[in-house]
Amino acid sequence: MKNPDPTFPSCPTPISRYDRIVMGHGGGGRLTHNLIDDIFIPAFNNSILRQLTDSAVLQVGEQRLAFTTDSYVVHPLFFPGGDIGSLAVNGTVNDLAMSGARPLYLSAGCILEEGLPLEDLKKIVDSMQRAAAAAKVQLVTGDTKVVDRGRGDGIYINTAGIGVIEHDLKIAPSQIQPGDAILLNGDIGRHGVAVMASRAGLSFETTIESDCAPLADLVLKLIDAGVEIHCLRDLTRGGLATALIELAASAQLGMELQEAAIPVREDVSGACEIMGFDPLYVANEGRLVCILPDAAVDQALKIMRAHPQGQGAALIGRVSAVENLRVILKNRIGTRRILDLLSGEQLPRIC
Amino acid sequence: MKNPDPTFPSCPTPISRYDRIVMGHGGGGRLTHNLIDDIFIPAFNNSILRQLTDSAVLQVGEQRLAFTTDSYVVHPLFFPGGDIGSLAVNGTVNDLAMSGARPLYLSAGCILEEGLPLEDLKKIVDSMQRAAAAAKVQLVTGDTKVVDRGRGDGIYINTAGIGVIEHDLKIAPSQIQPGDAILLNGDIGRHGVAVMASRAGLSFETTIESDCAPLADLVLKLIDAGVEIHCLRDLTRGGLATALIELAASAQLGMELQEAAIPVREDVSGACEIMGFDPLYVANEGRLVCILPDAAVDQALKIMRAHPQGQGAALIGRVSAVENLRVILKNRIGTRRILDLLSGEQLPRIC
Repeated sequence: MKNPDPTFPSCPTPISRYDRIVMGHGGGGRLTHNLIDDIFIPAFNNSILRQLTDSAVLQVGEQRLAFTTDSYVVHPLFFPGGDIGSLAVNGTVNDLAMSGARPLYLSAGCILEEGLPLEDLKKIVDSMQRAAAAAKVQLVTGDTKVVDRGRGDGIYINTAGIGVIEHDLKIAPSQIQPGDAILLNGDIGRHGVAVMASRAGLSFETTIESDCAPLADLVLKLIDAGVEIHCLRDLTRGGLATALIELAASAQLGMELQEAAIPVREDVSGACEIMGFDPLYVANEGRLVCILPDAAVDQALKIMRAHPQGQGAALIGRVSAVENLRVILKNRIGTRRILDLLSGEQLPRIC
Repeated sequence: MKNPDPTFPSCPTPISRYDRIVMGHGGGGRLTHNLIDDIFIPAFNNSILRQLTDSAVLQVGEQRLAFTTDSYVVHPLFFPGGDIGSLAVNGTVNDLAMSGARPLYLSAGCILEEGLPLEDLKKIVDSMQRAAAAAKVQLVTGDTKVVDRGRGDGIYINTAGIGVIEHDLKIAPSQIQPGDAILLNGDIGRHGVAVMASRAGLSFETTIESDCAPLADLVLKLIDAGVEIHCLRDLTRGGLATALIELAASAQLGMELQEAAIPVREDVSGACEIMGFDPLYVANEGRLVCILPDAAVDQALKIMRAHPQGQGAALIGRVSAVENLRVILKNRIGTRRILDLLSGEQLPRIC
């Protein structure tokens, strides 16, 4: 289970108000947390799951492995900069990378809807393979199921991944320290805007492409250079704000971000205004935050900026020294805004 | 990818006749093979995938691991003897067991349809946990997505699994030898009949319950006793006939089965007659074939019959010594029937 945390402060929309699944349960915000906390965690209760990191860390014999899964239900299947196939590979590769693992093997489970053009399927499968080759992973096992027309939406893909952890770091929310720096590897909001614009049939002056990309190589470069990483998280469903709110809650610490330091492309910011989204909450598929000691910032930024996936890397804020669980955004004129989880979803079926 | 094999003889329904997915592509028969052979294998082409066993066998450091995935789209979600939750756990545990692995960890990816009663979700999740505990595996990582009403069917579950291989046997179709014995661990057809009867609202004099059960412990007991297993396969989608046709094709050998030796419960056989199914092609979720040398038969049957999952174990046939790729069924009066893959599906959404 990704990102849930039972320690969130007061919860205005308890699950008991719902007796059925609503779209908001899939948005990555408060309702998703409630669902996971109320139903999945109590049932599957075990110490590995309770770590609630992007991938489970397992000891098998002498080997430390990372293991993760994600289902992809993005709509539409094809969008500028990617498709459900590349997304399904990169998303799972990135979850493995967030424990500092070297991704090795993926599985692929496809749920096909009756009527899906085989040409589309072929395009998606080829895209999965290209993404796998780029991320240096092999798709080694799979499964296909077919559901009746009107019981799916073209194709849903699940990928699970196995990676090997070759370092001795513990990369987890529990490692976050007061005073740690928060690095971001590039501009935010492109994936969500690309998908939503494509869904709505909107076009902007420039084409906004998803940032969908594999992040494992970037992370491994940091680890190989001896950078002392405390925590990593990729900024998918719920975006930068949700990821940091979750990490702050897990670590029982606060954070202070400088809005001016957070890169958002002008066209993305304009599109967000038109569509009524806050880029801080928009999903990315090639972005991560890296939380690490102050002393490691210069080296880490240098490595990130030299990497294709980190050219726009920036120091965007710090973990607060005080015991305050809030994530606070300071804007250009010094005003402070408390970031909070969205209740439901701003962008359904974005990944 | 499960069970496909490019070596099948002439194929009367080439994929090129279809330009869209049809239900038959999910039936486990010839169309499923075509889909996998024409689209997935050429794209994901790698030596591990090409083994085409129930789970991929991976070398990670010193460790031999089994890795597998399956998506579960069974309809209805609840049926006599099980539900989609227990099915999703046992199905993947069994795929791991078919390489002789000890199943350790599962992932769970749930695609929830807007409107699913939370009470149903809770029942299913609890059932997954009970099945996991019974099979001695841990559900360590997961993901939930929500799709709009009319884009799913309550819940689809993907599970992927990791197991550790602690023996030196190579258990694979390539190990099958002429003269090998074919053992079956119990009566066939119950899972498919239970689901279909439940779907059709049929009731029979006796309730036919799914045979859904974990098979890993049974397999490990055989391995621990030193039984020289050549090949294992569980008899899910497509049933006993499809599994053996696939194994015969992979091994480039024929098989001869004694119909009288194949256990089918009378009520199952009656229900199949009413519904127009052939029990040989009906899905099971707690049945396997074990192919092994003649000399190991007595010991293996003794171990199987002493185990809750093998009480009805039987020797049902032999691998032919001649080079004949057919799977032949001899009935009680000596008539011979050639078993062939079904073209599409007899039972859609059975697992």
